[in-house]
Amino acid sequence: MALALKALHTSFAVHFLAVVGAILVLIWCISFRGGLAWDSSNKNLIFNLHPVLMFIGFIIIGGEAIVSYKSLPLKKPEKKLIHLVLHAIALILGIIGIYTAFKFHNESNIANLYSLHSWLGIGVIVLYGIQWVYGFLVFFFPGGTPTIRSESLPWHVLFGTFVYILAIATAALGYLEKLTFLENSGLEKYGSEAFLVNFTAIVTVLYGTFVILTTLCQSPAEDEYSYSAI
Amino acid sequence: MALALKALHTSFAVHFLAVVGAILVLIWCISFRGGLAWDSSNKNLIFNLHPVLMFIGFIIIGGEAIVSYKSLPLKKPEKKLIHLVLHAIALILGIIGIYTAFKFHNESNIANLYSLHSWLGIGVIVLYGIQWVYGFLVFFFPGGTPTIRSESLPWHVLFGTFVYILAIATAALGYLEKLTFLENSGLEKYGSEAFLVNFTAIVTVLYGTFVILTTLCQSPAEDEYSYSAI
Ligand code: HEM
Ligand code: HEM
Repeated sequence: MALALKALHTSFAVHFLAVVGAILVLIWCISFRGGLAWDSSNKNLIFNLHPVLMFIGFIIIGGEAIVSYKSLPLKKPEKKLIHLVLHAIALILGIIGIYTAFKFHNESNIANLYSLHSWLGIGVIVLYGIQWVYGFLVFFFPGGTPTIRSESLPWHVLFGTFVYILAIATAALGYLEKLTFLENSGLEKYGSEAFLVNFTAIVTVLYGTFVILTTLCQSPAEDEYSYSAI
Repeated sequence: MALALKALHTSFAVHFLAVVGAILVLIWCISFRGGLAWDSSNKNLIFNLHPVLMFIGFIIIGGEAIVSYKSLPLKKPEKKLIHLVLHAIALILGIIGIYTAFKFHNESNIANLYSLHSWLGIGVIVLYGIQWVYGFLVFFFPGGTPTIRSESLPWHVLFGTFVYILAIATAALGYLEKLTFLENSGLEKYGSEAFLVNFTAIVTVLYGTFVILTTLCQSPAEDEYSYSAI
């Protein structure tokens, strides 16, 4: 059952929160944390790529991929193409973003994969990849039989929603972890940077909330392949 | 649309994960962290009440409250009573659990409400309270008109699901934050306690996942007030 809201309307909130969130994370990593670099003797600049790529590249683009399928007033084949291409971009930027965290750890002699954030993060990216490949094979090329498609659809929606919520939670864990490290090294708990990071995390949670809400709203053109099948 | 799974079956996974999770958090707080106390010169024992009350009292009992309405093979009025009483218990234990975190902070001269965990935690408990009061007034006593009830129901389900997912994410943030504090004070990153805490957090996430999954499955007796309305 779709809620009595139009996906096109809630998608405006999604785009708005995307712009606000992207600005916040860039201000944090560039103005407060010294900037971004792929190679540098200041290893912190390598780390800074991680939140930027994970939030803007993975979470925001992945969210727009979900919302595009539901809210754009286009034909199904066009929406499908936009959906799968945006998810592919999100997945690739997500993988590069995780690579930057490992690169930072390795070049700074910090252990890998010890935290809840990193464990869930690996889980998220692996599940996201599986979901993408399965969706591509069944719904795009070569494409399953009509029965396989229609039986797969509710699970595609359910599993995709689950993985996306887990990605939002993982990002929230990342902000909290990084801010806790900084506070343990002397950053003020009520200073402007602490507020900036916490607000960025809250915008991330709100963004994810509106993405999921949009999937429960009414498509411009209801058809059997829209998300409202669940 | 309900998934092709029976709520009674998925609810067994919920109960199983509840027992495993409760044992893990008790082992952590009692065997590894020295035990629980309301009053003590060792303030850490006061803190230890917080994860125990929040996870067992709030998350587990709150999850059972959600699942009970969907999975028990009982009449609607009985399920409703069980649902609202279990949620009331969860809410009260959650409030006491948050109080213990403040008590620990105040008696140890630690600032209050500086972290993302604490901000989302306050949000969760306030929204949970609003949801309980609204549900009580509309669906139980004095009860709204049939129109108000049926129009409120999908929003009750949606908002309840949202708040519950936020509670699970908040708990995950709590485990990560506490473990990060301990690791910063010298706890081994790959030691048995670190694994225990991370596994407890993963069981918490799995528990929440099965609670939400159960709400999407088929009730033993489908009727217009069951969760499958959405
Ligand atoms: C869904 C998005 C994200 C995913 C999938 C993800 C994944 C990961 C992974 C797999 C690691 C482990 C790297 C290693 O062990 O060498 C990591 C490290 C880290 N990430 Fe993220 N991350 C995400 C978003 C964020 C965000 C938004 C922040 C905010 C600052 C962040 C902060 C950190 C920090 C501080 C580390 C190093 C400490 C640790 O290993 O936990 N992450 N991330
Ligand atoms: C949904 C469940 C939970 C809620 C609603 C919640 C809420 C809160 C709140 C409101 C505070 C702030 C207290 C203050 O500022 O004085 C707090 C503190 C804390 N909680 Fe939780 N909590 C939950 C679960 C957990 C769990 C499972 C842990 C695991 C250890 C945990 C660890 C902590 C820690 C370390 C603090 C002190 C640091 C801080 O203020 O962030 N919490 N919690």
